[in-house]
Amino acid sequence: MEKYKIYSAGKFIETNQILDVKNPFNKEIFAQTYLAGEKEFEDSVNAAIEAKQLMKEMPSYKKYEILRYVSDAFYKEKERLATVLSMESGKPMRYAIGEIERSAQTVLIAAEESKRIPKEYFSLDWTAAGKGKEALVKHFPVGLVGAIAPFNFPLNLAMHKVAPAIAAGNTVILKPARSTPLSVLEFAKIIDQTDLPKGALSVLPADRVVGNKIVTDTRFDMLSFTGSPEVGWEMKRNAGKKKIALELGGNAGVIVSEKADIEKAVSKCLVGAYAYSGQVCIHVQRIYVQKDIFDFFVKKFIEGTKLLKQGNPLDSSTEISVMIDEQNAVRVESWVNEAVSGGAKVLFGGNRYGNYFEPTIITNTKPEMNVCFSEIFGPVVTIEKYETLENAVKMVNDSQYGLQAGIFSDSNKEINYAFENINVGGVISNDIPTFRVDHMPYGGVKNSGFGREGIKYTIQEMTEARLLVRDF
Amino acid sequence: MEKYKIYSAGKFIETNQILDVKNPFNKEIFAQTYLAGEKEFEDSVNAAIEAKQLMKEMPSYKKYEILRYVSDAFYKEKERLATVLSMESGKPMRYAIGEIERSAQTVLIAAEESKRIPKEYFSLDWTAAGKGKEALVKHFPVGLVGAIAPFNFPLNLAMHKVAPAIAAGNTVILKPARSTPLSVLEFAKIIDQTDLPKGALSVLPADRVVGNKIVTDTRFDMLSFTGSPEVGWEMKRNAGKKKIALELGGNAGVIVSEKADIEKAVSKCLVGAYAYSGQVCIHVQRIYVQKDIFDFFVKKFIEGTKLLKQGNPLDSSTEISVMIDEQNAVRVESWVNEAVSGGAKVLFGGNRYGNYFEPTIITNTKPEMNVCFSEIFGPVVTIEKYETLENAVKMVNDSQYGLQAGIFSDSNKEINYAFENINVGGVISNDIPTFRVDHMPYGGVKNSGFGREGIKYTIQEMTEARLLVRDF
Amino acid sequence: MEKYKIYSAGKFIETNQILDVKNPFNKEIFAQTYLAGEKEFEDSVNAAIEAKQLMKEMPSYKKYEILRYVSDAFYKEKERLATVLSMESGKPMRYAIGEIERSAQTVLIAAEESKRIPKEYFSLDWTAAGKGKEALVKHFPVGLVGAIAPFNFPLNLAMHKVAPAIAAGNTVILKPARSTPLSVLEFAKIIDQTDLPKGALSVLPADRVVGNKIVTDTRFDMLSFTGSPEVGWEMKRNAGKKKIALELGGNAGVIVSEKADIEKAVSKCLVGAYAYSGQVCIHVQRIYVQKDIFDFFVKKFIEGTKLLKQGNPLDSSTEISVMIDEQNAVRVESWVNEAVSGGAKVLFGGNRYGNYFEPTIITNTKPEMNVCFSEIFGPVVTIEKYETLENAVKMVNDSQYGLQAGIFSDSNKEINYAFENINVGGVISNDIPTFRVDHMPYGGVKNSGFGREGIKYTIQEMTEARLLVRDF
Amino acid sequence: MEKYKIYSAGKFIETNQILDVKNPFNKEIFAQTYLAGEKEFEDSVNAAIEAKQLMKEMPSYKKYEILRYVSDAFYKEKERLATVLSMESGKPMRYAIGEIERSAQTVLIAAEESKRIPKEYFSLDWTAAGKGKEALVKHFPVGLVGAIAPFNFPLNLAMHKVAPAIAAGNTVILKPARSTPLSVLEFAKIIDQTDLPKGALSVLPADRVVGNKIVTDTRFDMLSFTGSPEVGWEMKRNAGKKKIALELGGNAGVIVSEKADIEKAVSKCLVGAYAYSGQVCIHVQRIYVQKDIFDFFVKKFIEGTKLLKQGNPLDSSTEISVMIDEQNAVRVESWVNEAVSGGAKVLFGGNRYGNYFEPTIITNTKPEMNVCFSEIFGPVVTIEKYETLENAVKMVNDSQYGLQAGIFSDSNKEINYAFENINVGGVISNDIPTFRVDHMPYGGVKNSGFGREGIKYTIQEMTEARLLVRDF
Repeated sequence: MEKYKIYSAGKFIETNQILDVKNPFNKEIFAQTYLAGEKEFEDSVNAAIEAKQLMKEMPSYKKYEILRYVSDAFYKEKERLATVLSMESGKPMRYAIGEIERSAQTVLIAAEESKRIPKEYFSLDWTAAGKGKEALVKHFPVGLVGAIAPFNFPLNLAMHKVAPAIAAGNTVILKPARSTPLSVLEFAKIIDQTDLPKGALSVLPADRVVGNKIVTDTRFDMLSFTGSPEVGWEMKRNAGKKKIALELGGNAGVIVSEKADIEKAVSKCLVGAYAYSGQVCIHVQRIYVQKDIFDFFVKKFIEGTKLLKQGNPLDSSTEISVMIDEQNAVRVESWVNEAVSGGAKVLFGGNRYGNYFEPTIITNTKPEMNVCFSEIFGPVVTIEKYETLENAVKMVNDSQYGLQAGIFSDSNKEINYAFENINVGGVISNDIPTFRVDHMPYGGVKNSGFGREGIKYTIQEMTEARLLVRDF
Repeated sequence: MEKYKIYSAGKFIETNQILDVKNPFNKEIFAQTYLAGEKEFEDSVNAAIEAKQLMKEMPSYKKYEILRYVSDAFYKEKERLATVLSMESGKPMRYAIGEIERSAQTVLIAAEESKRIPKEYFSLDWTAAGKGKEALVKHFPVGLVGAIAPFNFPLNLAMHKVAPAIAAGNTVILKPARSTPLSVLEFAKIIDQTDLPKGALSVLPADRVVGNKIVTDTRFDMLSFTGSPEVGWEMKRNAGKKKIALELGGNAGVIVSEKADIEKAVSKCLVGAYAYSGQVCIHVQRIYVQKDIFDFFVKKFIEGTKLLKQGNPLDSSTEISVMIDEQNAVRVESWVNEAVSGGAKVLFGGNRYGNYFEPTIITNTKPEMNVCFSEIFGPVVTIEKYETLENAVKMVNDSQYGLQAGIFSDSNKEINYAFENINVGGVISNDIPTFRVDHMPYGGVKNSGFGREGIKYTIQEMTEARLLVRDF
Repeated sequence: MEKYKIYSAGKFIETNQILDVKNPFNKEIFAQTYLAGEKEFEDSVNAAIEAKQLMKEMPSYKKYEILRYVSDAFYKEKERLATVLSMESGKPMRYAIGEIERSAQTVLIAAEESKRIPKEYFSLDWTAAGKGKEALVKHFPVGLVGAIAPFNFPLNLAMHKVAPAIAAGNTVILKPARSTPLSVLEFAKIIDQTDLPKGALSVLPADRVVGNKIVTDTRFDMLSFTGSPEVGWEMKRNAGKKKIALELGGNAGVIVSEKADIEKAVSKCLVGAYAYSGQVCIHVQRIYVQKDIFDFFVKKFIEGTKLLKQGNPLDSSTEISVMIDEQNAVRVESWVNEAVSGGAKVLFGGNRYGNYFEPTIITNTKPEMNVCFSEIFGPVVTIEKYETLENAVKMVNDSQYGLQAGIFSDSNKEINYAFENINVGGVISNDIPTFRVDHMPYGGVKNSGFGREGIKYTIQEMTEARLLVRDF
Repeated sequence: MEKYKIYSAGKFIETNQILDVKNPFNKEIFAQTYLAGEKEFEDSVNAAIEAKQLMKEMPSYKKYEILRYVSDAFYKEKERLATVLSMESGKPMRYAIGEIERSAQTVLIAAEESKRIPKEYFSLDWTAAGKGKEALVKHFPVGLVGAIAPFNFPLNLAMHKVAPAIAAGNTVILKPARSTPLSVLEFAKIIDQTDLPKGALSVLPADRVVGNKIVTDTRFDMLSFTGSPEVGWEMKRNAGKKKIALELGGNAGVIVSEKADIEKAVSKCLVGAYAYSGQVCIHVQRIYVQKDIFDFFVKKFIEGTKLLKQGNPLDSSTEISVMIDEQNAVRVESWVNEAVSGGAKVLFGGNRYGNYFEPTIITNTKPEMNVCFSEIFGPVVTIEKYETLENAVKMVNDSQYGLQAGIFSDSNKEINYAFENINVGGVISNDIPTFRVDHMPYGGVKNSGFGREGIKYTIQEMTEARLLVRDF
């Protein structure tokens, strides 16, 4: 069985706490790594602080070389890395390979953006007081970034924190989810071969005690967290003076207008609803279909759902497989049951087998049911009918979350109305809310988070503006 | 009868060549001014060169004060200035007042943009050769701008050259159209009350000999011309090393899809077709209507045309009046006759009375007829039917011009197709191609011109980028 | 005695709690206003929430008109408003007039920026997944902004919150300092004459209970606070999910190199040290002079200090006058005494007379003394000698604060070294750290704050980015 | 002997006109290629026009892949390509390798910028007329670009035209200098292996007849020329309506202030003066040294010149070698002789041996001598003394050219004065005017050219802005 050392203060080390890594599909422990304790945490923080000055002064061509090396390596080792990722997360290979490719792209974008960190220059002579003066604004690295990443995109969501942190000239300590520590340790092995100063990055699988330290320790200059709202908002309260970025959950809604290409809407929504068993922040959870096309849409959607290929994630033809663990599958089951008790109707699926939950379609729901109101993070979708677009937008907005939403329609007016009135971080027109490419701004409002990711946006958040007033 | 002195080298002066200014509606000479000769031209050029350094060094708050004073004065004296403009150009008061307001806005935008001339600042360390170096790019005034303005928007199109020239720190010599010299001389009186260095601006009504000097004289650093293509392109050939901006003609096409709000399309097109008797570069000259709605559109359009109120431009209810002179009205008449001989059908109007030409609707035209192919610059519109959008776009593109075009449609796909495929400077969706607000980029491709106006775009063209490489 | 009604939910009202406004110079109560209670707070919040939609949809030309009206009125009523401001704050008229002018400029900038709120548009086809897609990012108003302003620039620092809030399309509830409520109530009277929707702005003098509600009430979408670090950082902790901007204190340091224009440095530092008795966040508190020119600098600085004209703030020749209250003067006195006990030497001044504290120069200080370490907010300056620039920069950085710093030097290398290494929000070269024009980014690091003001930066912070993914 | 086919309309072909390629060092013909005639020209143009639509619609990830493939290949085959380049141009290997690396970087930048072609989006509601409207500006490829490249940087200066042309979505026909056709034909072989549509690029060595067609043929939408002023300005006159970019010559001046690091100035100037025997547009031709340090500078400069290693370009230790041909060496010799006859003094060198010209230092020159006034394009430098900076700037400006200039000084005021007052495209502080990295804007004023290169600037010039007005 492979043993992965953790990456602390520029060294691959073992600790006295072993962490077993289980394959969610067959429940076998297929690898081991270690949990960082107090000592490893301190060593990593000290090394990171030591490396700050080197990182701050690193020219952009050096940052580019380091990040490009990682990106190229991801492409080259795509199959192998995807297998590791699939095994630790239960993610079907087709999606695991997609994640490695996206991670390579994420890191490449960071490489390119490291050369383009925006600087401002403008005249100050708007009044006599500023005559002969000009202003330069540069963005300096904040210093030490604490990054806490989730299990569902164990590599790419970590790269969305680490790569821009490096591009911005920061040092970073990354804590992966305990269930999925391996793909980021593979990344650590790759970047260790570059000129990145030792200690500038540590990758520390750890328990919540260490996690809390990242939040409260004043030696961290920024905290970037992706995870649940409860944990995230409490972090904001306890983060002290440090900057904070939170990417929390969602219960994405999508509107299908009668002016849409309906076949396209169906096939896109099938992916958004079931990819990685819905364990995606921007999983399609709520579909609102205009009344005239509702029946047709539902019929086609059920047909599509039936065709999904279930199986072992490592099988390249598998489209849907197990959830990350049984606890989550049980939670999803209970929410579905709660909905049914409240009058909702299951149009397809609804059953659980261990940690596998069937792709499931529900209708006749009420907004306050957990399947609508909370983030289901499972392969469950609700479909409801709407009369007017205004009404559909209200239903999408009737949520504690505000991450992304979708609208299928060819009407200019409808798309614009949706954009102006849906209170989310992103409105995706003629595609599912699950759409994300890695250079676009990404993040939510309301309970869904605080701040935006998307490389150049993350770089912005991971730097501090400093003004120079020049006088001649 | 009022006599307007011309503005040369910071002084209001008379010359030995009197220029009569005629009211196109009643043909009466209602004012006089002077033509600049060789001496005034030389004095103006010398004074402008003298003033270059002062203009280059002027802080932005000074430029703002000067331009804002002018803008405020235009608003305050709106009625009076509109009357002058209406009398020299025959433009109905409702449009003349609109032009004064737009001129005030144009100058205000320039005032604001003078503080915001873009500067770039970026790192040069993309390779080891640039390590430790940073780049600053500032835009310096070109120096002396020659501006040649047309009769149809005698104030606002002049302001589109003069105001950004000043905002950019240039000196400028303005030659108005000989038929409409008064509103810019009113402007000269206003700006003469400010701190603008004497000689930084001259306003010289002049004959073509002086006009040619502006083109060929190497002391001018830039030439900005609005007028006819024949003259414009010959200027480009003869301009030597100076920069050049050309705003030439157009024969704007507009597409009305069955997915449009048709009533809105009709009422907008009526304005675009007949405002100031079509003597507008972005006058609606060619309307292409989807076949299913063609008859309805034509019926409504004829109805609307019938309701137009004809009369004295100074009467505030007048909607259409005379053309600038009889020579132009005769030309329009001959083109209409040519079209009829070739098989076209006049649906409404078609008659000339002196320099008044009736609002006229033609159909069954061929692309090579002058009413389609050339810029009609009169109150004439052609309406044709189309089958597919691809076809409509081809018809719009089948033209020597490429200034602006319009499309009425609510379809996202249709608007985008039009935008991607119509080869013009601007595509206006759900409005007429005649739409222009003064901070948007404006200018054409093909025979329609070279470069873009729109204050900040003009400022860009009226400056020269200079790089400073900084080393630490 | 004049009575000022407070401005709640679009109405000027009285409450049952009278607030006396005292002239700090002669301690006379010269005006009265009212404290808002629970009811006024609720009314204001409800009206603000009601007005959100109108504000969000307001076109930029409307915002421009409203804000420009205010700016123009400030210029027109400069003398009268300055007198009110001087009387409530004890600020000498020369500086009070300057503040009114700057307030007019602040509001004008906001007017202009309301038209220029940045929008992004970019292609998404960086990978095959984004083929045919483009992104639009617009910034939507956050909603309701709570603004808490300080006494020292009672009008301009309030305008730095209110004007961009309106420019961004927000509603706002402003709580001025209790000692200086009048100038912002004058502002309320002016803006009430515009088309600003009633309720979009309330101005509520209030006690700390109401202040705390602004922090904790979840109906506020953002909190913008200028005041002390202790209060500010506690607010951050309690602000919940809302956005927050903190402008806290400073103890600005300035470096005078032997390569500087020393006479200029002296005369600038005199203003920075004593203007408004040092009750300025970017007051020059610590001067570090290169050893070879130290004695000369000190001699000249003492000479300049002796010449300061003390007197009634309302007298236009007065340069220095009383502090805001005796409590603060006593605090300054105690810090000076503490420094002297610790070995520091008073080179000039050091005495208190009621709430007047003499302009005071100290040397031989230690970094941990309050006169160095804390924000003195009084007319006291320390001057110390340095050997190397590295050393001087270390001394400037040896501080809990990081707002602005200054360096006087003609050396390119020295200025750049200072800029790259002084950990503050702004480095002012060849001028005092007290330099601020109202469109530049302004704000601090470390204990000095969180976020940046400066109209367009504030607008950025008072809006939420929303992405539209377009598909064709 | 290797035979290189030319690249016309997507095919490698032979023609009936053989072009011998000579090694300037040993005068041996070491390779052959072909001149394009009328037929190849027509085929290439037709194929390019055919490919326009494919290029316009190519997503950015495709352009990135194509260009990145080229960039990677340049790095991989660096030694081989440098040898080809060195043999055709006589450029010493150390510089030839540098050119291949820079070419790789140039193409990589274009790859990256193809994803970042700027788009603008802004509100139009600055007046009531624009209410509810927003503007999008996109930059569309101009179409077919004619590129004419010089001998002195046969690969990199060609890449500065071809790479951004492709990045912008254009098709391009490249005519290299007749003496140096090989390195770009090597490039053609590389890019032919990518997905670039056949015909989108042709590389045509040709005589002047074909060159003239590129200028006058109306099927070309843009002309980009690097070469001599006489040819360039005549092209501008004859280019008709097409866009034009001219990179012409220079006679770069550099100022060495007494506030400079003199040793650094000497060693940098040695490179600027003699690299590739001064056959560089931004070759250091004129050095102005402050009087107090003049003698020291000259002494050191002569010492440095003596140490230059002369030899075969293919020898990696060679620093200076032959000129491109004897005709040019003779011209340089005659200019030096002319200067000496006029009173100038040769401090070092001055002799010609075939096409080798010694590194040569001259003083006591007059501005009107060819060694000062004209572009020498040979290893000759003039050094003169100055009293005041104002005077030095005047001497730099006293030139028909305005490409780049340098100033060595640590004074902030001096650098700024030079930047504000030297009329050139770029002022390089604390380095030689010969400094160029490939993403910076590059180009001249006065006789030195028209427009700017530097990838994103070239992309800007190779596109046409088109506005979409959106209405909701």
